[in-house]
Amino acid sequence: MPENTMESTLEHSNETLRQLHARKSVRVYDPDRPVSRQAKKQLFEAAVTAPTAGCMTLYTILDITDQGVKDRLAILCDHQPFIASAPVVLVFLADWQRWYDSFCAAGDGAVRSPREGDLLLAVADAVIAAQNVVVAAESLGLGSCYIGDILENGEEVAQLLNIPRFAAPAAMLCIGYPAREQLLRNKPARFSPSSLVHENAYQLADTAALMAMHNERNPGDGFPGTVRNLCGRKWNSPFMTEMNRSASAWLKRWVDGNG
Amino acid sequence: MPENTMESTLEHSNETLRQLHARKSVRVYDPDRPVSRQAKKQLFEAAVTAPTAGCMTLYTILDITDQGVKDRLAILCDHQPFIASAPVVLVFLADWQRWYDSFCAAGDGAVRSPREGDLLLAVADAVIAAQNVVVAAESLGLGSCYIGDILENGEEVAQLLNIPRFAAPAAMLCIGYPAREQLLRNKPARFSPSSLVHENAYQLADTAALMAMHNERNPGDGFPGTVRNLCGRKWNSPFMTEMNRSASAWLKRWVDGNG
Repeated sequence: MPENTMESTLEHSNETLRQLHARKSVRVYDPDRPVSRQAKKQLFEAAVTAPTAGCMTLYTILDITDQGVKDRLAILCDHQPFIASAPVVLVFLADWQRWYDSFCAAGDGAVRSPREGDLLLAVADAVIAAQNVVVAAESLGLGSCYIGDILENGEEVAQLLNIPRFAAPAAMLCIGYPAREQLLRNKPARFSPSSLVHENAYQLADTAALMAMHNERNPGDGFPGTVRNLCGRKWNSPFMTEMNRSASAWLKRWVDGNG
Repeated sequence: MPENTMESTLEHSNETLRQLHARKSVRVYDPDRPVSRQAKKQLFEAAVTAPTAGCMTLYTILDITDQGVKDRLAILCDHQPFIASAPVVLVFLADWQRWYDSFCAAGDGAVRSPREGDLLLAVADAVIAAQNVVVAAESLGLGSCYIGDILENGEEVAQLLNIPRFAAPAAMLCIGYPAREQLLRNKPARFSPSSLVHENAYQLADTAALMAMHNERNPGDGFPGTVRNLCGRKWNSPFMTEMNRSASAWLKRWVDGNG
């Protein structure tokens, strides 16, 4: 069977796979369709049923319903006004505070403080739960968008959301029913799995391989066009500089108690 | 409608939600059912179609097919022999190396080095893709298990898997068709969403609230029983000490070039 035929036959072979492939980020929401209490409940149940390290649920979800808080997050997360108009805004915190306090309260000897590995494990836990929410949302006809910018302006985010020392933002989601124009938008092209999956060991790509990868995804303008554009617009941007400063402060706060 | 009735009515209201709720970790695989090339292709396609920051795909998936490498990972990841017998072993690396090298090759001025915020963003990207693989696997009848221990023994893991400076492990998955006894195993109880979802701001739980949370999940033995058990068996264990040492080294390697 030719490769292309096999691909189109297989990738949508069940409804769940079809939904994974259909899902694209949605940043404009139908203002006339609020998200019901029941739908939100389904999203939270999908989060909580997700895989979690040692079944310890190393995260807390902040459900932002206060318009003032949404407005402030829209500014703190690189000035994206659509955040303020999202019907549902969820902040996923990596969280060992609940367990650290439980260990101390259970009173069985000295309790060490959380460190870097604990944070990374909890970040994974939080993001796993967030992606279950994305999948659940898609199955309910709800659009979603991740906001990586929740890592920025950590000091004010911590104060705004009352985040204790052993918790830190891992991801943020905006959710709502898609506005009509969002349904018509094409999903942006991805790199092909052949560039992203390596067998047994990492294979460092040489310049020719990198060029081929970018040009396959963006024919005619991948390399150097798209690469230079992203380097200027994202990599060397003030918002990524701020994200790095802020993430470093989150780590310092977590490990040393001040950031 | 009474709360309980609503819950049972709602949480399985479509096939995708039903699968999210049915999914549990699987650590024993049917030795007579290999995972086909086509099924693996579907898993990789599910990964690549996942949401990704700026559509930049900040991860690489290592598909471990070499038995010797599986055997070594089983030892390096806290001595879990089942890893060596998993039909599919995938390591998800947070990865900016591909983009950093692309930025340098595109040759448009100075290129800054990746820092802490870039790493956390890429970890989220990698874990989002991993969870899409878990969901896709469940839809295909495949069982999966996360291995957080891939954060341990970083120096040897980096060498074994040829991981370059601007990549680092974010998650690992073992996948295969479940052995019969795994299908019969109950999914471990989760905390209820009411403990994990806070409205607008983090609500620090006092000891009474923590006790109630643990006792709701493990009636009769939650607090202090289960908490003390986890504190000894996990929190104060050698493997978590190693995870923290190793994660700190990964961060140092990423930021300073040596770990």
